This record gives sequence, C-alpha cells and structure tokens, in this order.
Amino acid sequence: MKKILVIGSGKSTSYLLNYLSENAEKEDWNINIVDISTHNIQPNILENPRIKTHSFNVNDQIERENFISDSDIVISMLPAFMHLPIAKDCLKLKKHLVTASYVSDELKSLDAEVKENGLIFMNEIGLDPGIDHLSAMKMIDDLKEQGMEITAFESFTGGLVSFESEKDNPWKYKFTWNPRNVVLAGQGGAVKFIQEGKYKYIPYHKLFRRTEYIEIEGHGRFQGYANRDSLKYIDLYGLRNVKTFFRGTLRRPGFCRAWDMFVQLGMTDDSYIMEDSENMTFRDFINSFLAYDVSDSVELKVEHYLYIDQDSDLMEMLEYLDLFKRIKVGIKNATPAQILQHILERKWTLSPEDKDMVIMLHKIDYVELNQKKQLQSSMVVIGENQIYTAMSKTVGLPVAIATKLILNGKITTTGVQVPLIKEIYQPILDELEKNNIKFIDKIHFLGQI
Amino acid sequence: MKKILVIGSGKSTSYLLNYLSENAEKEDWNINIVDISTHNIQPNILENPRIKTHSFNVNDQIERENFISDSDIVISMLPAFMHLPIAKDCLKLKKHLVTASYVSDELKSLDAEVKENGLIFMNEIGLDPGIDHLSAMKMIDDLKEQGMEITAFESFTGGLVSFESEKDNPWKYKFTWNPRNVVLAGQGGAVKFIQEGKYKYIPYHKLFRRTEYIEIEGHGRFQGYANRDSLKYIDLYGLRNVKTFFRGTLRRPGFCRAWDMFVQLGMTDDSYIMEDSENMTFRDFINSFLAYDVSDSVELKVEHYLYIDQDSDLMEMLEYLDLFKRIKVGIKNATPAQILQHILERKWTLSPEDKDMVIMLHKIDYVELNQKKQLQSSMVVIGENQIYTAMSKTVGLPVAIATKLILNGKITTTGVQVPLIKEIYQPILDELEKNNIKFIDKIHFLGQI
Repeated sequence: MKKILVIGSGKSTSYLLNYLSENAEKEDWNINIVDISTHNIQPNILENPRIKTHSFNVNDQIERENFISDSDIVISMLPAFMHLPIAKDCLKLKKHLVTASYVSDELKSLDAEVKENGLIFMNEIGLDPGIDHLSAMKMIDDLKEQGMEITAFESFTGGLVSFESEKDNPWKYKFTWNPRNVVLAGQGGAVKFIQEGKYKYIPYHKLFRRTEYIEIEGHGRFQGYANRDSLKYIDLYGLRNVKTFFRGTLRRPGFCRAWDMFVQLGMTDDSYIMEDSENMTFRDFINSFLAYDVSDSVELKVEHYLYIDQDSDLMEMLEYLDLFKRIKVGIKNATPAQILQHILERKWTLSPEDKDMVIMLHKIDYVELNQKKQLQSSMVVIGENQIYTAMSKTVGLPVAIATKLILNGKITTTGVQVPLIKEIYQPILDELEKNNIKFIDKIHFLGQI
Repeated sequence: MKKILVIGSGKSTSYLLNYLSENAEKEDWNINIVDISTHNIQPNILENPRIKTHSFNVNDQIERENFISDSDIVISMLPAFMHLPIAKDCLKLKKHLVTASYVSDELKSLDAEVKENGLIFMNEIGLDPGIDHLSAMKMIDDLKEQGMEITAFESFTGGLVSFESEKDNPWKYKFTWNPRNVVLAGQGGAVKFIQEGKYKYIPYHKLFRRTEYIEIEGHGRFQGYANRDSLKYIDLYGLRNVKTFFRGTLRRPGFCRAWDMFVQLGMTDDSYIMEDSENMTFRDFINSFLAYDVSDSVELKVEHYLYIDQDSDLMEMLEYLDLFKRIKVGIKNATPAQILQHILERKWTLSPEDKDMVIMLHKIDYVELNQKKQLQSSMVVIGENQIYTAMSKTVGLPVAIATKLILNGKITTTGVQVPLIKEIYQPILDELEKNNIKFIDKIHFLGQI
C-alpha cells in the first residue's frame, strides 16, 4: 500500500483528485487531501473510503510535517511560492514531491541533496509548464532520431474559453486560471528570445504590441505574446544551435492590443498602494492615470492618451468592463493590479454554462534533404463544465500520471527534475492520449535550400 | 579645535573642499579627506597644512572606524547606498553626520538612537534634495506668516549646460552629475503626485511624455518631468491641504520626448545582462530591441516602432549619438542601461570649454484677500569651468555651511534630519546668497476668486 498526500484542493484539482480516486483501489493507494479549506472537493471524492480530507493552515509546520511524514509521495498544488517549505520538509522526511510549477532557483539548489537521498522532486508537470515540455521533447527527439537538422522552435499555449462562451464578450477571454497571474503576466523581468540568430529583448510596456498570429484548423486565429525568458529552455531542450527559439502565450486576436491599454495606463502595477482605494470608483481609478484637465471627460482623455478612436473596438472593450462607471472599488489599501483584477473578475468569471478551452501549438522548422520543412503539432482540449475544466484536466492529469509512474518505479531518475526525457514523457503522453489530450501533427513544406 | 572627516573626494566636492579649506584657519578646523582615490583633489587643497588626505577602500571597516573615531563630524559624499554603514559607525562612535542624499528608510530608523545620543545626522542638504527644501520652506513659512492660504506647490530642478555649451548638441544636455542616475531616472516605483485635489500616478514608460513647460526669464524654456514620489513631501512641507503638489526635473524642451525613445525600446533596463555585450555594436544594441526582419533597415524599424518620421529631430538625435553605427560596445556582461550610458558618455561629457548650469524654480499658488496669486522663485547658477561646476557649487556649499553651523552650535536640533526648519534654512540661504546662489522672486496675479 502507498500513501499519497495532496496539499491544495483548489479548483484546478478536480481531474487530479478524480484520477487518484479512480486508481486508488487498483493501485492500492491511500490518499490524504489537505488544504486550509476543502470545500471545493467533489462528493464522489469524499465518498471514496481510500481518501481522507483534512483542513488546516498549511503554513502550520507541525501539522504539515505530520502529514508529510505519513506519506510516500507529496503532490503540492499550492501557488508556486509555497512549494519551497514543503520541498524542504520532503527532503528532511525523505519523500518524493510532484508540482506543476516552474522550478525556482532555491528549489533547484536542493538538487544534489535530493539525489543523494534517492528522491525525485518532479516539477513543471502540469500544462505550461508540463505538457508543453513533454510534447516538445518528443517532437525534438523524434526529428533528431530521423537525422533532421532543427533550425527553429516556437511553442504557444493558451487557456481560453470555447467558441460558444466567447460570444457577446469583446475580449473573448475569461479567467480559467489564477487571475492574479493573468494580471501580472509579463512582469518581473525583460522578455528574451532568439530569432534568426539574433537575441531579442522586449520591455514589458511593448510586450503586448509585439505579437505573432497563428491559426489552428477548426479553431480559428490566435495571437501570441512572448513568455518572459525563452532562452533558459534552449539548452534544456538540446537546441543550442537553433536560430529561433520562442515560447509564447495565446489569446484571441485583439486581446493583446486591448490589454496593452492597461499596461500603458499603469493599471497592472502591483508595486504600490493607491490612496483611498476603497472609496475610489472605477472611473476615478482610470482617471488617476490621466493628466488633470478642467473640462475634458475621462473618455476623451483615454482616447487622446492612448491614441485610439472614439468609435474603436478598444473603447467598446473598456466600456464592456464598466471602466467609466461610478461603481465603487470597495477594496482597502489596494494596488492598481488588485483593483484591475477586481474589475475584470466581474466580467471574466466563467458562468455555469461556460466551457473553457486549452490550446497548444508547437512549430519546429527543420531541414530534410535540402528541403526546409515545418512540423506543426497542435492540441485542443475543451472543458466539460465549470468544475471539470480543460485547464484542470491538462494541469491535473500529467501530475497524477507522473505520481503513479514514480510510485510504480517506472520513473527512476532522481533529483530536482523537469520532464524532458523519454522515460518520463512517453508513458505520460500515451496515457494523456487515452484521456483525449492528444496532438495533431502536420508537416508544411517551406522551401528548397 | 574641531576635526572634520570628509569621506569621498569625487568631482562634485570641489566647492565643498574649497569652503572647508578657506574656513579651516578661522574656524580652527583640522580636516581629513579619505577616498579610494584622492586624485581629484585640487592642489590648493593639498597645500593647506590643516588638511590631510588618505586613500583607502572605505568598505574597510577598521580603517573607516579609525578615521571616524578621530573626528567630530563626518561628511559623506559617497553614493547614497554607501551611507548606511557610515551612519552606523557614526552612531556607535557618537559623531555627527552630513550627507547630500535622500534619507533611506534604514537611515530614518536610526532616528531615536541618534537623538538619544544628542547627535544630528543632517541629510538632503545638497542641491536637490537640499537647496530645494531650504528655499521652498522659506517661501512657505513666509506666506503662512503673512496669513496667505497656499493652494498649490510645484518645484523643479535641473542640472544642465549653459547656453554656449548647448550649441551643436541636439539634446542640449550633458552629464553634470552621476551618469548612472540620469540613465536610471524615474525607475524603481511609480510616480505619484496630487493635482487639483486628485491623486495622479504615472508609470515609468509614460513619464517622459507627461511633461510640463516652464520659462525662466533670460534663460528660455524648459521641460519638466515628474520626480518619483512627490506625496511624501506634502506633510514634511506642512501642506496637507494643498490641491496640487508636484516636484519635477528640468531638461531643455525636446529632451524628454527623445529620452522616451530609449525607454520605449527598453534601453534603460538595468535588470539583466545582454548576451555577448562585449562584441555587440551600437547598431546591434538598438536592433536587439526591434523585431527581426529579413530586409528592413534598423533605421526604418526604429521609425516604424516608435512612430517617428524619417526626417524628424528625433532621428537626428539618435544619429548624433552614433546609435546606428557599427562601433563596438566593448563592455563585458553589460546591462542595457550600462551600454546606453557608455554610448551617451561619448557625447555627453563636458569638454574643457563647457560650463554647466543649475536651475531651480518654485511656483506657489496662494490666496490673498480673494485674489489668486502665484509666487515664482527661481535660481540660476552657471559653472565656472569643468572643475568648479554649478553642480559642485550648489551641492557642496550647503553641505559645507551646514557642517559649520553644526560645529558652531548654531544648529541645535538632533536626530536624522532634513533641512526644513528656519534655524537651518535661514543661515544657509543667507550664506549661499553671499556666494551668488540666490533666488529671484516674482508675483503673478492669477485671478479673482
């Protein structure tokens, strides 16, 4: 019998918990699920005799250590910044760890000790990072095995809403993942990538105006903006000599140009508290980023400041969010980013009938016998409903499958890892495909050399 | 006999050292000047038998403590981030301290202990901060004494070059103070001020496009951009109920719009190292912030990206700096800001025949018997030459005079201070006026209430 501890039972864990529940009997697992509140957990999970839930503050060192010591493997689904203390506990108590988050430098620094103890801390095994690594590495390894020379790599992922849930919403977007991360996306360091052999850098305030358009058959057009630091993946992917390497995030066309208005105004800044934010109206909020004028309206000042027309779609998008209305913010000591998030959540929260959509596209250019070709591989997953979302599925299933593979001894590597080797990606991709998370490949002929 | 220790003997200390030297005999001072290198010190200082110079690394705790303990007062002219350890030594060894830098939170936290020991740590007693505080507080106190109701306060300072030194330079600017601070100006936090009773916030990437024009008779027009956080001075200046409070930095018209090009491109970012910066050319540098294009020139891409015309002054200003030339950067592991500073220093360094200029303007609106009026007070100082600059004079003399007043017991306040009270500002302003650093006042009638 193996014991699994799941820390965190937020909205994104529905598929993860389902998978663990469904496999518990067959795999002989006992599962503890802990969080500060466990009210998101679905009845079918609670009914499983092999699963127990406990609510307590996971910052409570003693409670946390008790549960970790009583497990064989720990899955942390908490926000990324909370992984480090858990990782240190796991090291001390000699338990494996699985997370869907980026490996921080602090976590990476535990690598040698984790290896010494014969443990694996598997990270970046959700959607992005996660399925993007798995599928990209499979494409790269396959092409290399066939002797192809890879010249360019581009990869895009987006968490969006399905066609039907886009209608009447000029942004064609709702939050399907942590809203705070969406509001702060792109901040905290310049964007870096390599294009045609040239290193390229984009400052935050230009990020949403330097986009690339892509099309996925049957799903229409999308717009991709660059992820923060693509460069660090070049070596991890074994693509040191590639001329273009770019990782990006997908939105529907028009979103990025409109989001840039918030960036230009300064509304995404999370570094300072606004004066008297509680009593400010949405209209005051936008006006506080505009110069004083004794007679001009807030609308006219926005149009003039951002060089946009009064009858443009962009103004419609601001109006849709009620940004010019005298609605009270009502949040004490809030940063601009917190206020913006509050305003967006009023309109960008999934309704009961909404379905979310996850899309991923890799484009790899390569040379085959003097011909330039491009392999495109795309994945589209539509959510079932508000609980069983595509986001929860694509994040949770890789985590769950990796956990099973570690417990079964199918993954034998140790240390602080990200899933880049065949031993890991092949069985996970195979099982994802059985769950209808699959990639469709196409080869395009680009030209003769 | 009193002993003065001056830590730091950089270019900006010429007037400070001169003043100390000239007054040493009369005031019975002995003076130690220490720095890692003392080669900037002028011969007339070195010849004074009351002055000794010593070169050592001021990070050397033991050497530093030796010199501090052998003094009555310490003047730190090092960069601001180096003041804290010196301040802690001064507290431990019970010595007064004078600096021309902003009070950091860490320094402010020493206040109670400094007071307990009967010491004064006088800061912000250079030009800006410094003379701006002295002169503003005098105006404010005078108006209040006359029973006027102050409604608005605006203050601008600029370190520029004289008319003759502007010619053939489309930027009408050269470095007359720490170049690094000029390149990074406005970064590290949103700009905050209050205008007509409304709090206003400007993000960094809009800062240089939200300027105000002012004119100083006989010296022409200037353009002011906002300093970072004006709000924190409202209470210090006793102006809680004022409707407008703004502090800004002056440049010649056109400078800010052009500087904004660097901001928009991302060239002022100091947060990351550029790949292979050493072998990069100026042209590569600018191109690394622009999208790849197989055929478009770097010039065309800049024009298009920044929405500027090919025949605009802005392109002339970039050409003047050789930004499109294939000149090697030659600096290893440099940030964009470091590379930009290097490029600017080639053209923006004072020539032997150049003279610098310091200007300051306060505008205070007030109400007198149902009449709205504005008191404008302006100061213009022109440097003598490259060594005896206006910057060195306006920074160094207030520091020197404050030091004398503390030693003579004329300043009796204790604690971590900034110069806001009459006991401090009046004697310093009087002595500055004798040295031709003086303000010209004008009253403008704004209208009937």
